[in-house]
Amino acid sequence: MVTRIALLGSTGSVGRQTLDVIEQHPDDFRIVALAAGHNRDELARQVHRHRPSLVVTKDPASSFAGIETLPSPEGLIAAATHPDVDLVVFATSGHDAISATIEAIRHKKKIAIANKEAIVCAGDIIMPLARSNDVVIRPIDSEHSAIWQSLASGPAKSLKRITLTASGGPFRGTPARELASVTYQQALKHPNWNMGSKITIDSATLVNKGLELIEAHHLFAIPQRQIDVVVHPEQIIHSLVEFNDGNTIAQLSVPDMRLPIQYALTYPNRLPGDARQLDLVSIGSLSFEQVDVDRFPSLRLAREAGEAGGTYPTVFSAVDEIAVEAFARGRIRFTGIPRLIETILSRHSSEPVTGLDVVKSADEWARREASRLVSEFA
Amino acid sequence: MVTRIALLGSTGSVGRQTLDVIEQHPDDFRIVALAAGHNRDELARQVHRHRPSLVVTKDPASSFAGIETLPSPEGLIAAATHPDVDLVVFATSGHDAISATIEAIRHKKKIAIANKEAIVCAGDIIMPLARSNDVVIRPIDSEHSAIWQSLASGPAKSLKRITLTASGGPFRGTPARELASVTYQQALKHPNWNMGSKITIDSATLVNKGLELIEAHHLFAIPQRQIDVVVHPEQIIHSLVEFNDGNTIAQLSVPDMRLPIQYALTYPNRLPGDARQLDLVSIGSLSFEQVDVDRFPSLRLAREAGEAGGTYPTVFSAVDEIAVEAFARGRIRFTGIPRLIETILSRHSSEPVTGLDVVKSADEWARREASRLVSEFA
Repeated sequence: MVTRIALLGSTGSVGRQTLDVIEQHPDDFRIVALAAGHNRDELARQVHRHRPSLVVTKDPASSFAGIETLPSPEGLIAAATHPDVDLVVFATSGHDAISATIEAIRHKKKIAIANKEAIVCAGDIIMPLARSNDVVIRPIDSEHSAIWQSLASGPAKSLKRITLTASGGPFRGTPARELASVTYQQALKHPNWNMGSKITIDSATLVNKGLELIEAHHLFAIPQRQIDVVVHPEQIIHSLVEFNDGNTIAQLSVPDMRLPIQYALTYPNRLPGDARQLDLVSIGSLSFEQVDVDRFPSLRLAREAGEAGGTYPTVFSAVDEIAVEAFARGRIRFTGIPRLIETILSRHSSEPVTGLDVVKSADEWARREASRLVSEFA
Repeated sequence: MVTRIALLGSTGSVGRQTLDVIEQHPDDFRIVALAAGHNRDELARQVHRHRPSLVVTKDPASSFAGIETLPSPEGLIAAATHPDVDLVVFATSGHDAISATIEAIRHKKKIAIANKEAIVCAGDIIMPLARSNDVVIRPIDSEHSAIWQSLASGPAKSLKRITLTASGGPFRGTPARELASVTYQQALKHPNWNMGSKITIDSATLVNKGLELIEAHHLFAIPQRQIDVVVHPEQIIHSLVEFNDGNTIAQLSVPDMRLPIQYALTYPNRLPGDARQLDLVSIGSLSFEQVDVDRFPSLRLAREAGEAGGTYPTVFSAVDEIAVEAFARGRIRFTGIPRLIETILSRHSSEPVTGLDVVKSADEWARREASRLVSEFA
């Protein structure tokens, strides 16, 4: 049976790789709706190739002959709840698609999600809603996919501990005193993955791992204190799950985002894929180190924000976005990113996440405060 | 609900560890029948502690007040098919319990099996019978338990490749020219596991890994060519399963036989256990090497015997037993073990395994031939 898909964020890195997976399996998947931002040419190519029923775009000038076109973000809900859609892939970034995620769950669509912000900021809303609607949130992040695949060896009630693996980023071996002077270009050189620039910087600061920690807590209903992070530079084991009987199950593969994307599309089945085969003998060895939270305080801050809950994770995520942008523009140093996050977190009064309006106002407050204080961290 | 257990081979290494697991979970398991060989004192202690309804022993002088006692091997079938028994643990070695395995399956008992010979020699009988009776064969070997636990991430039809890990044994780094002069005492020093002496020698020659290869083929219904073996000296990853989409799932733990034993008893559930927690950071790294089949030809011989099928695996296993005994008595060299196996295999005319009589006569022929030729390999 063909799975009919709405792909939100189709022109980004995950979006394009999702289409790659779909194009490899034309008998299994069909694109019903595409949503993208301002990358007009790429979207036009995708629309031409997949002929969706609905296109959602931030570019008001775009129109596609004979295809319904709606503006973004308003049209995202229409895409996510389209009657012909079985599964919605959220490959957007930021908060744009959170309402669409909620609506898709209410419509009992299958949900595959690469968007960290949705779970990090609105997990308190999304996860209970998913549970009450019997919707499985299928994670696309390689770490969460690894956990999810490993948890199949369950039962879930026997889950004792999750270990997220981290590459350690380009500055894993950089002494503390040199971190203040690393450049944006150096930070963009991720050792294993080819990703967007924001997430690459987040990998260098370990903010990304912090967001994943908070996300794992929501996705797998496990207290944060039962989630460890270890540095695993080869990035072959994408995460591990320990059961209460002492058995640990892990997922391994070459780093290739198409693997978790495809599994999210095919779950609980699997389809052949063309990823490079894992060859442990030629890799030789897999190594593990403790995270140095002195050099990478973002992980500690994420843990604190996640433990405190409420709107703290939203603030953590929002300030990071402002900080990364400021780092990209040379307005703050690499080490200024966690310092800015810590400062704004310490000034925040958290609220329970009772609705998206709460998330939105915390997000706006955090961005405003962060932008205001950036110059102090120059 | 209490699972009522018949434990065959209760005084051996796996048997004693099985009782350890059972004693840790008195509300979950109860011993209904115990079967052992000549270790009279240990059996008496076990009977005193667990008060089974039936005892089977090779020691005709043993009797236990008020407890039915039967001679072994005749009594094994009574133990394995006892009406009060839910699950039979086969922790015996050799061929004694193969008939009991078959009868237990016919009685639709749950089956946990540590006995390699049963599957290696009689897999062609046992596996079809288990499938037609809807009996899951629960493996107790750490490697097969790892595969079994990892396969839960399935589906089974998407299984592409199994990788068995091998410690490499005590002679992993020993140059070929020195292997002829290694002693029995050196071979008994296994780097990771504390096991019986026969299996420890089999780990040193890699015969054990060869038996596991043949066993995995039967247990998981996968052609041998889709089963790889890699040397993994740390013995943390106990085996891996690769699915056709490129995802590999693996089971990891400290080396502790009680883990696979307990999982076989609790499947599909898990119960808390007191195994030491896996700490990847303190282990530091996991390494992988190719098996050197020039130095360890037993693995190649096992693969050939398994591919050829019929009674070849029985001959492989039987000759190895004679060869290990001869090595223990100083009658042949370490390198004589695979040479003796290869010679007898080359003289064997294989037959399809249509019944246990076929296995029995191949086993007897192989032992006779091997004993006859041992002096030529001195």
